[in-house]
Amino acid sequence: MAILVVGSVAFDAIETPSGRRDRCLGGAATYFSLAASYFTDVRVIGVVGEDFGDEEKAVFTRRNIDTRGIEHVPGKSFFWSGSYMKNLNEAQTLNTELNVFQSFSPKIPAEYQDSEFLFLANIDPVLQEEVRRKMPKVKMVCGDTMNYWIRDHAENLARVLKTLDGLLINDTEAKMLAKQNNLVQAARSILDMGPKVLVVKHGEYGATAFFGDKTFANGASSTPFRAPALPLAEVVDPTGAGDSFAGGFFGYIASQPDLTPAVFRRAMFYGGVMGSFAVERFGTERLQQLDPKEIEERFALFRQLSHLD
Amino acid sequence: MAILVVGSVAFDAIETPSGRRDRCLGGAATYFSLAASYFTDVRVIGVVGEDFGDEEKAVFTRRNIDTRGIEHVPGKSFFWSGSYMKNLNEAQTLNTELNVFQSFSPKIPAEYQDSEFLFLANIDPVLQEEVRRKMPKVKMVCGDTMNYWIRDHAENLARVLKTLDGLLINDTEAKMLAKQNNLVQAARSILDMGPKVLVVKHGEYGATAFFGDKTFANGASSTPFRAPALPLAEVVDPTGAGDSFAGGFFGYIASQPDLTPAVFRRAMFYGGVMGSFAVERFGTERLQQLDPKEIEERFALFRQLSHLD
Repeated sequence: MAILVVGSVAFDAIETPSGRRDRCLGGAATYFSLAASYFTDVRVIGVVGEDFGDEEKAVFTRRNIDTRGIEHVPGKSFFWSGSYMKNLNEAQTLNTELNVFQSFSPKIPAEYQDSEFLFLANIDPVLQEEVRRKMPKVKMVCGDTMNYWIRDHAENLARVLKTLDGLLINDTEAKMLAKQNNLVQAARSILDMGPKVLVVKHGEYGATAFFGDKTFANGASSTPFRAPALPLAEVVDPTGAGDSFAGGFFGYIASQPDLTPAVFRRAMFYGGVMGSFAVERFGTERLQQLDPKEIEERFALFRQLSHLD
Repeated sequence: MAILVVGSVAFDAIETPSGRRDRCLGGAATYFSLAASYFTDVRVIGVVGEDFGDEEKAVFTRRNIDTRGIEHVPGKSFFWSGSYMKNLNEAQTLNTELNVFQSFSPKIPAEYQDSEFLFLANIDPVLQEEVRRKMPKVKMVCGDTMNYWIRDHAENLARVLKTLDGLLINDTEAKMLAKQNNLVQAARSILDMGPKVLVVKHGEYGATAFFGDKTFANGASSTPFRAPALPLAEVVDPTGAGDSFAGGFFGYIASQPDLTPAVFRRAMFYGGVMGSFAVERFGTERLQQLDPKEIEERFALFRQLSHLD
């Protein structure tokens, strides 16, 4: 079943201890859709400028990602420049140019209307809410956000949270959103804000899902679930790891007939798997050309890494 | 089979967001031996002052821990005072009084000579080496250390590392010891220093075991193993969590006829289980009176928390 994702499609300049790239295709919607494309049909809504040409478009179409919702407008695409020289776990933003993203007004093509899954990547919650409202019939909607929206756009964000089935954020964001230093208590507060499930991403330590009372139709327990991350000898470029996690996670869920606890757990593992691939190369290089067999092998490795037998 | 542990037996003054205790029984050997006592016979080597009386001794003997190696000398016991008010993940040391510990010279009672397992808790590597040398026939020896010994006593520590089967330290210590920021590369360096296995404790994110080439007689794979930690709504007192992990881990190993990969994995889980109990109350309160059934229930919870099915 198809996932509709709305978010940024951008160019990034990145420096890490492993090297640098002056211009690579990035943006949350790009990472998400590439990762999800290995599991299900993906449709993107975003905006790009004149610098987004056939080469960039081909990155999506080679993975059968529907780009009819990517609007082309005069000007330059969203540009982000970041450095991981001081800390591989947290990007230092050197420069952000919103460019055409500044006046982004998401338009949903008629062909996208039957999408059953919706992912609201990290953009202005006002836009997230707008897209959510235009897709009232989706089976499941998940979203992401970041410190800027949590701190300075809390009311708008609160309205979005009420409409989410799942929220995927990192530890710092969860604690900031809940104004709570203990993660379990933060999760309880956030689940009270709307989402049925909260997935907290811990970077190199994996991710934990916290469940509210109404996650699964068949009434699963409220025990959290923790998926590991793969210990890697070299993290070439951490950019997009969280979006790739979200793509693997939600892509797998969309590929299954029902959201059972077992499906949810496997989805958490596939999230970790896709995140681990993303950081092995710069930008989306690795996500562009995965072999489905590699994905299954790494899934087996995640199991071996974490299971008693 | 019996474990011999050498380390500190102390009094602690602790303040955390949950409250404070002016004087509670602590020390690495205390936490370790209480945790291990639920799995196997434990014998302690340490030194205490005149303030260590019948009440303190009873904490050990009620758990059938052999205290004949705890030397009583004139003066006061080792005293540590710490605060977790700023950060629950890292103690701020307010005061350390070595007292009788300053001239500690470990003596091994004749009755301890047949111990098959040896744990060198975090003390001066010169003393660790001395005890190790006096117990040449042990089946397996594990140890702990800390930033102070890594930084200022590197040569002494290096000699101990050569004699260890397993080293259990936290992320910061591992990276400091290896002078390496990437954990996988740090683990490789440390395994080159001597230990056959390195267990890195991640606090609330669990622990990862990294294996060298010669860990198990039957030739296990070199895939790391990651055990979860239990997400807790309240960490009352983090003191001793790492030592309790070590006690559960090594206690379980000592209780089993052979160290197979399956036994090792379960040991990692029991480590997490005992660490999770330790932090639920101040000092060793929780570890003093566990029901074996509680331990098995929590083990099952750890499995549920981390396993696909």
